[in-house]
Amino acid sequence: MSWIGVDLGGTKIYGVVVKGAEVVHEAKRKTPTQGGPLAVVDAIAALVTDDLGGLDGVHGVGIGAPGVVDVVTGTVHEAPNLAGWVEPFDLGPAVAEAFGGHPVTVDNDVNVGTVAEHRIGAGKGANELLGVFVGTGVGGGLILDGRLRRGSTGLAGEIGHVAVEQRGRLCGCGGRGHLEAYAGRAGLERRARELDGEGRDTMLVELAPAKRMTSSVFAKALAAGDPVAIELLDEAVEALGVAISSAVTLLDLRLVVVGGGLADRLGPAFVGRVEQAARSRSFTSNSPLRVVPGELGDRSGAIGAALVAAEGVAVQHP
Amino acid sequence: MSWIGVDLGGTKIYGVVVKGAEVVHEAKRKTPTQGGPLAVVDAIAALVTDDLGGLDGVHGVGIGAPGVVDVVTGTVHEAPNLAGWVEPFDLGPAVAEAFGGHPVTVDNDVNVGTVAEHRIGAGKGANELLGVFVGTGVGGGLILDGRLRRGSTGLAGEIGHVAVEQRGRLCGCGGRGHLEAYAGRAGLERRARELDGEGRDTMLVELAPAKRMTSSVFAKALAAGDPVAIELLDEAVEALGVAISSAVTLLDLRLVVVGGGLADRLGPAFVGRVEQAARSRSFTSNSPLRVVPGELGDRSGAIGAALVAAEGVAVQHP
Repeated sequence: MSWIGVDLGGTKIYGVVVKGAEVVHEAKRKTPTQGGPLAVVDAIAALVTDDLGGLDGVHGVGIGAPGVVDVVTGTVHEAPNLAGWVEPFDLGPAVAEAFGGHPVTVDNDVNVGTVAEHRIGAGKGANELLGVFVGTGVGGGLILDGRLRRGSTGLAGEIGHVAVEQRGRLCGCGGRGHLEAYAGRAGLERRARELDGEGRDTMLVELAPAKRMTSSVFAKALAAGDPVAIELLDEAVEALGVAISSAVTLLDLRLVVVGGGLADRLGPAFVGRVEQAARSRSFTSNSPLRVVPGELGDRSGAIGAALVAAEGVAVQHP
Repeated sequence: MSWIGVDLGGTKIYGVVVKGAEVVHEAKRKTPTQGGPLAVVDAIAALVTDDLGGLDGVHGVGIGAPGVVDVVTGTVHEAPNLAGWVEPFDLGPAVAEAFGGHPVTVDNDVNVGTVAEHRIGAGKGANELLGVFVGTGVGGGLILDGRLRRGSTGLAGEIGHVAVEQRGRLCGCGGRGHLEAYAGRAGLERRARELDGEGRDTMLVELAPAKRMTSSVFAKALAAGDPVAIELLDEAVEALGVAISSAVTLLDLRLVVVGGGLADRLGPAFVGRVEQAARSRSFTSNSPLRVVPGELGDRSGAIGAALVAAEGVAVQHP
């Protein structure tokens, strides 16, 4: 029996066909930049039908979506990274209708990514973990007592908006001193351009004068010993260590899995530094805490969406 | 059917007899300052036998103890506030033996206090809450999905050691920028004496020149408009707001109950300010978060110990 998982990202839509714990097929498409939610529904339908072999023998479809997701209604409320997604849109029912009534589940992309790392990735066999995804922003998901925690409004796990510095840097969300402002790619880019504006010399801005300062740009500048890149990444590691150790203290966890585009690009050495920073701030001596890299890379969201659909954790549409 | 609950504190041992959800009897004794754990066992036995009417008709005894408690073995590992408690001591089995084999459970004092507020106090009817106890230090407990969360090593809920300022004040535990350093009575006292040493004029030190700067001293100085007391309490409110909002963001909670000696002494207005500080930093607009004062005061630990024993949540000894 197979399941399809779709990760709806800001730039691409990634789809997988999962059989048991195996990915048997995968494909991706660009996320439409025009046409809003309806164009996204068409793109998902085309990806599934044309690129993933259609729905024959497929038991259900899971979608991981960015932003605030209501898993009961399948509604994506706010999705700042998706063009034209200004009003809440019932993605689950719309995709289910496009598939002629085939069951569809929708959940937050980071939540499903965490489920994937827990079930078949770096957290396989663990009963509990915190997933931290360091990409453009910093997202997170919590597995407590074997199950994904959603919380009272579906937003549990948002470690990116945990404060590491009460009067610190402004976060994209408007808050102060949040982890995301120190460790998310967009926050790093903002700070790099600020420092460049203040006269600090950095190849980060030379490598990305006007366009997006990608994870690769940071990796290149780091490899070349660029002082601003080194300073920014040191601060990111420290902030991740602080936020992770606070979360681990509050919940008394043993395992943190760090994935996401920036963390994947910087590799296991980066995650090792985060582990050291978190452990050095651990509340207990001989902390059992391990911080390990994710194993599923940018497929974690799509795989997790399929797994969540298969487990019937989220509510199905129609 | 009645249950006895005992709260083992640094200065007093508080005992209650609970029948259903009613406290039908209560008493207290000074915590022995000499004789170590064995003297504590004797004091608990005397309190129960002589002051609380003995064990006739009592189904079991629960003890809330400070420090690191192993609920399975009934061992209190580290209890810095208890004189002569330098080695781990099997408190549960020792008290059970003193009672001729009567069932005894042991759990962390803050955990049982949280259970009490949840079952019959300010959190009655709620499915989830964070309990924050602002006293000499800052402790915390978590009720998730109706049950006390203990975590992988029994230390879950320790919000006092969540960082609010990554390179901030030194905490009593050796960590940096922890909530407890900003909001615990001992941290406030340390900071007040520091500021006094730097030449700031404050009645806090006049009211407590050498002896402990109690919660009442802070209340008096605040009422008199002492600028240092006002500044310190403003910082405490801010730090509590930051740590609570981080915990609420991570777990997506709706309810926080604030108790403990200092919070009780400063009253509902103080907790109201903490609520405002936490809500103003909330990740979501229209946050459903409420931060309310505890209802059980300094009886929460003893009541909770009885309730935990009655619910058979912790393991019984012998």
